[in-house]
Amino acid sequence: MLDPEMDLTRQIKTLLNPSSIAIVGASQNLDSISGRPIRYLQEHGYRGKIYPINPKYKEIAGETCYASIADVPDDIDVAMIAINYKMVLSVLEACEQKNVKHAILFTSGFAETGEAGRQLQHQVAEIAKRSGMRILGPNCQGLVNLAAGNTSSFSASLEIRPFKEGLVGFVTQSGALGYSIFNLAQEEGVGFSSIVSTGNEVDLNSLDFIEYFIDDDNTKVILTYIEEVSDGRRFRKLADRALQKGKPIICLKAGASEVGQKAAASHTASMVSSDTSYEALFRQKGIIRVHDVKEMIQVARMAERFTVMPNGMNLGVITTSGGAGILLADEASRIGLGIPELDARTQQHLSEVIPAYGSTVNPVDVTAQVINEAGGFKKVLDVLMDNPDIDAIIVVISMIYGEPGRIIAREVVEAHQSARKPVVVTWPAGDRLMSDNFEVLESGNVPWCKSPVEGIDALGKVMSYRAFYNKYGAGTPEIPTRERQTGHAEIEKFFETGKTPAGEEEKTISEYYAKQILAHYGIPVNRCELASSAKHAVELAEDIGYPVVLKVDSASISHKSDVGGIQLNLGSSASVKKAYDIIMDNLRKRSLDDNINGIMVQEMVHGGTETIVGISYEPKFGPMIMFGLGGVYVEVLKDVAFRFAPLSQQEAQDMIQEIKSYKVLQGVRGEGPRDVYALVNTLVQISHMASEWESVVDQLDINPLVVLPNQQGVKVLDALIIKR
Amino acid sequence: MLDPEMDLTRQIKTLLNPSSIAIVGASQNLDSISGRPIRYLQEHGYRGKIYPINPKYKEIAGETCYASIADVPDDIDVAMIAINYKMVLSVLEACEQKNVKHAILFTSGFAETGEAGRQLQHQVAEIAKRSGMRILGPNCQGLVNLAAGNTSSFSASLEIRPFKEGLVGFVTQSGALGYSIFNLAQEEGVGFSSIVSTGNEVDLNSLDFIEYFIDDDNTKVILTYIEEVSDGRRFRKLADRALQKGKPIICLKAGASEVGQKAAASHTASMVSSDTSYEALFRQKGIIRVHDVKEMIQVARMAERFTVMPNGMNLGVITTSGGAGILLADEASRIGLGIPELDARTQQHLSEVIPAYGSTVNPVDVTAQVINEAGGFKKVLDVLMDNPDIDAIIVVISMIYGEPGRIIAREVVEAHQSARKPVVVTWPAGDRLMSDNFEVLESGNVPWCKSPVEGIDALGKVMSYRAFYNKYGAGTPEIPTRERQTGHAEIEKFFETGKTPAGEEEKTISEYYAKQILAHYGIPVNRCELASSAKHAVELAEDIGYPVVLKVDSASISHKSDVGGIQLNLGSSASVKKAYDIIMDNLRKRSLDDNINGIMVQEMVHGGTETIVGISYEPKFGPMIMFGLGGVYVEVLKDVAFRFAPLSQQEAQDMIQEIKSYKVLQGVRGEGPRDVYALVNTLVQISHMASEWESVVDQLDINPLVVLPNQQGVKVLDALIIKR
Repeated sequence: MLDPEMDLTRQIKTLLNPSSIAIVGASQNLDSISGRPIRYLQEHGYRGKIYPINPKYKEIAGETCYASIADVPDDIDVAMIAINYKMVLSVLEACEQKNVKHAILFTSGFAETGEAGRQLQHQVAEIAKRSGMRILGPNCQGLVNLAAGNTSSFSASLEIRPFKEGLVGFVTQSGALGYSIFNLAQEEGVGFSSIVSTGNEVDLNSLDFIEYFIDDDNTKVILTYIEEVSDGRRFRKLADRALQKGKPIICLKAGASEVGQKAAASHTASMVSSDTSYEALFRQKGIIRVHDVKEMIQVARMAERFTVMPNGMNLGVITTSGGAGILLADEASRIGLGIPELDARTQQHLSEVIPAYGSTVNPVDVTAQVINEAGGFKKVLDVLMDNPDIDAIIVVISMIYGEPGRIIAREVVEAHQSARKPVVVTWPAGDRLMSDNFEVLESGNVPWCKSPVEGIDALGKVMSYRAFYNKYGAGTPEIPTRERQTGHAEIEKFFETGKTPAGEEEKTISEYYAKQILAHYGIPVNRCELASSAKHAVELAEDIGYPVVLKVDSASISHKSDVGGIQLNLGSSASVKKAYDIIMDNLRKRSLDDNINGIMVQEMVHGGTETIVGISYEPKFGPMIMFGLGGVYVEVLKDVAFRFAPLSQQEAQDMIQEIKSYKVLQGVRGEGPRDVYALVNTLVQISHMASEWESVVDQLDINPLVVLPNQQGVKVLDALIIKR
Repeated sequence: MLDPEMDLTRQIKTLLNPSSIAIVGASQNLDSISGRPIRYLQEHGYRGKIYPINPKYKEIAGETCYASIADVPDDIDVAMIAINYKMVLSVLEACEQKNVKHAILFTSGFAETGEAGRQLQHQVAEIAKRSGMRILGPNCQGLVNLAAGNTSSFSASLEIRPFKEGLVGFVTQSGALGYSIFNLAQEEGVGFSSIVSTGNEVDLNSLDFIEYFIDDDNTKVILTYIEEVSDGRRFRKLADRALQKGKPIICLKAGASEVGQKAAASHTASMVSSDTSYEALFRQKGIIRVHDVKEMIQVARMAERFTVMPNGMNLGVITTSGGAGILLADEASRIGLGIPELDARTQQHLSEVIPAYGSTVNPVDVTAQVINEAGGFKKVLDVLMDNPDIDAIIVVISMIYGEPGRIIAREVVEAHQSARKPVVVTWPAGDRLMSDNFEVLESGNVPWCKSPVEGIDALGKVMSYRAFYNKYGAGTPEIPTRERQTGHAEIEKFFETGKTPAGEEEKTISEYYAKQILAHYGIPVNRCELASSAKHAVELAEDIGYPVVLKVDSASISHKSDVGGIQLNLGSSASVKKAYDIIMDNLRKRSLDDNINGIMVQEMVHGGTETIVGISYEPKFGPMIMFGLGGVYVEVLKDVAFRFAPLSQQEAQDMIQEIKSYKVLQGVRGEGPRDVYALVNTLVQISHMASEWESVVDQLDINPLVVLPNQQGVKVLDALIIKR
């Protein structure tokens, strides 16, 4: 049997390293979209065979031109197709007959244009499926494998020669933006292994290439521009694998806003998932999210160039400008990096070379004087390199011009290449005066940029990624989604409760049964019994102990208090009896009394902090769990955290600590800390329930889940499940 | 009598436009700190006289060199001093005797180095005071007036020739960082009028130059790097004047974090005010705060280049890359800019040139096809220029190379110069391929940059500034701090309440008297009377109406509940009597019963939303007012807004709407909206009280101020004043 994964790797390898390439619709105008690829292949030293296809010509750019694919006297690994969309199907069929291995479809006019295009695209998909030929596109700008000189693309960014080869693999859903980023990144010294534009993704998609890059030894950093992935679960798994390998995925995810989502939907012709799903996935799997082209390039540059990765979150700052040092300290604090004060001995050491008007604390302000002294800057750099409190160093230079500037640049290069700690340089100055210094940094492969805050922000992203990797990367594989257990007959029964008045199955599982299900998973619920009469209610209340709460239970009543279905704080048998009658009266008045399971008698829980836990099933990603404090925290402040189920203990803990109101759980305003330990376990259990029953549960709302003081656990006071 | 302001203007004018400059400590090494200024003056075409001073030489760079200041056979407008700090005083005295008008002190070794340096600096200040000679520095890098070729500085950034003159005036407290920014900005095409480094600000300070720039016709945009201003009130007034003139102040304020503040304090040798004060001032006065060098340059560039300012917050996006359009839509939404959908007629219009795989909604995706059609891009640009829903246009180009790229660039230049609406271009591509297109934009003075998000962020700052200007700029001068009224004898009496047991005046004004003061300002307080006995308390309660609250009133008891000094919800005369006795008992047990004003009987207020209003007196800035919702909103979420008193209605309203939990006041969870109108008026009144009594009030805490449902007003339930 074929291993589909190996198969995919092999196929993409062929796409990236074809022995022969045909260009269907090739033009003699080597500056046109269908002429450029031939010129680019030649100019970038592609060593395979090039077959232009066009009945109009005998020869293009020195290559024999054939009237059709069928005429080519050789096997064809890849066919680039750059013709009008109306002719695409017949060309693909010709490719199929010729056993062309794979095709790249530049042509626009498919799903992005409307219904007719969508149908055409569907037919292309059919050809891919039946033929085994993998298709990239349509509406894409092709791919480039830099080492092979394979420029199967028409992007003007390929006018640059030579390319800067390197360790960044880039897959983009926007061809125009992607190749712009590629061009800008190349000029900023980022080396690439490959870049792939996937367009409408009729067959091969972004995740296929991410998977390829994870296993590709020439790729150390994965870059991706995404509007929407086809398979969120697969993305989760791939992100896990990338994390275990320590390969950062840097993702520019567009469509975070409503306007952006609308624009993306019209652009990619696909329904766009909510940004919440992506953000949850990125946080859970350590994907580095960037929001701009420049930021993407900076982070990629650092991740590619570091000779050693940072091992903690503490930064040493060396500056020739006190002002720049302060700026960096501010930004470090904003993004959660530490600037530890240096110990007395280290400061003593530094004060041997730094004058009184400088600073030996961190940020270390060396002043221009140190720069002018032989070995001064090197000493400062070495001292910080050796200091165990410092995990990475950022150097900010100001207008240090000429030889002193070159000395600094050379020292930094040496420090960088010694691979003791990551070093980043920021140098806010123009090229006209500083280009020779910049050249030294650049040829030494030092990660550097002009803007101090841009530099520290990118460094911070890499440091946070590594901290995440240290926490999750080793030995925390994806928790397997539990197979639904046998012996769950009882739960299944609960899931099947309820019929509508018309006898159809209710979509809603009422509080009583929802709590039974949760309890089955070891999730503490307050005592809750179903009474069938006032007398029965009193008996149950006596057993539970006063005070109690009475609530109607019914799949068809979602807002119990709106219909007079709740009576709180009942302290005696008399009040329970009365409350029972009031509720039944209220229901009768509204003709709701027929369709109820009974009246619940519940233990009343005092104290603690109310939280909310929710599950919502995201079609592409699976069950997503939400956590936040109750009331306005969720409704007004949107102070909530999201992850996908199932959760590990660590993930549950991170999720709880992520919300801004976490401090409330730690105890505020004279109240002691809450039982966060029990909360963690409960979130894990809920997430397992959600995973096991994900084919059934569309939504679960636990509101509130009361978190009691330390050692006292948690309790579900109300819950509701909506089935799909 | 001299007008000190006119005087300052005249003095700075002389500093920037001197007829003669002496360089004390001049060196024949024209690359050294004391040699460069001479070379720079010559190279940049300074037309005044240059007098090098150094007993070692007869001549430097063709200029006659004198042994001392006294020997110069001419008046000296400005003396640059670049000698060891030990000789500074004697040189300044020589300058004084020679009637040198002003001095620029490069020398380090003053307050930034410790106590001895501080004393030396003090002596420099004395000379400035007694001589009328204005001194810039010490520990500064001097100034440059570009139009005059006056390069009174040694910064290597002056190696560039020629300068790009322009409309940006820049004053910086960090010389090294400031001149780095200047250099980078010059290379990015920002034109400057002047740049001034103020160093330790012994005499002339940043605010002096901001004031100068406000009135300077050659300056349209004011740029400043600030660690700490000497006079916050003056900064407030200047910011007001700049706003009324529509001159944006762009401020890079360092020292926002604790580490940053520590670093700043050691750097500028001054105590650093909390960032809260600056942030409050910036928000209140429309100062554009930037956080990075690059951002500072981008915003300055836009503000300088715009031929017309944006008049609203709605953006039209034109892109050749769907992906880039989505990115911009996301960022616009994040920073509060609108991307209005275009009306059907406009879309119809656009669809005549945009193919089906593009987009005629906003963002408008023109696709590469439009670019290749003659007049296509121009048409799209014109349509959006004419659309009244659009206040500014941002264009994002991808890899549009060669002639099509140049056409776009030219069209944009034309649109920019037509001054109909602001146009910004972002073009994420490298210089090697695009430099000719970039050149067209640059020579057309179009504000452009490479990174789309960087571009929209800078544009957003300018748009927000203009929106602020439209709201506050015209006709809302600073509200004059009211003179303390006569007839305030009664208030004065309240302010004087309380003696410590030792007979000293209490710093604290207790709740009862604090409320009297507030009531005097028309601020509603709950009914609150002082009882001297249980019987009296019952009488007062009968009058107020049950239920009531009993609370001890004493300047020396700050936490009333901790000492058993509060009894709530008293519904009958019996319970009032009992409560009175309990409180007195509790106080007696703690020996606190001697020093009390009495027991307050207070109206109990139900419902409403609890808010907190605070005043804290910031020594440099004046009374600062804080507003937020009560409890965890303030304590955990720090969801508060700050402004300086006195407040206008509009400012109070902005402040209330600034907090994230504002929605709670609008009504959530089934509760109706609160009386925000009354809240606005109350904040204004409190701010006036704080202004009038700012010499007395150090802190005021109103906690809670209950905001009742609409039309029902607000009520102060507790208050405390601490005197300075």
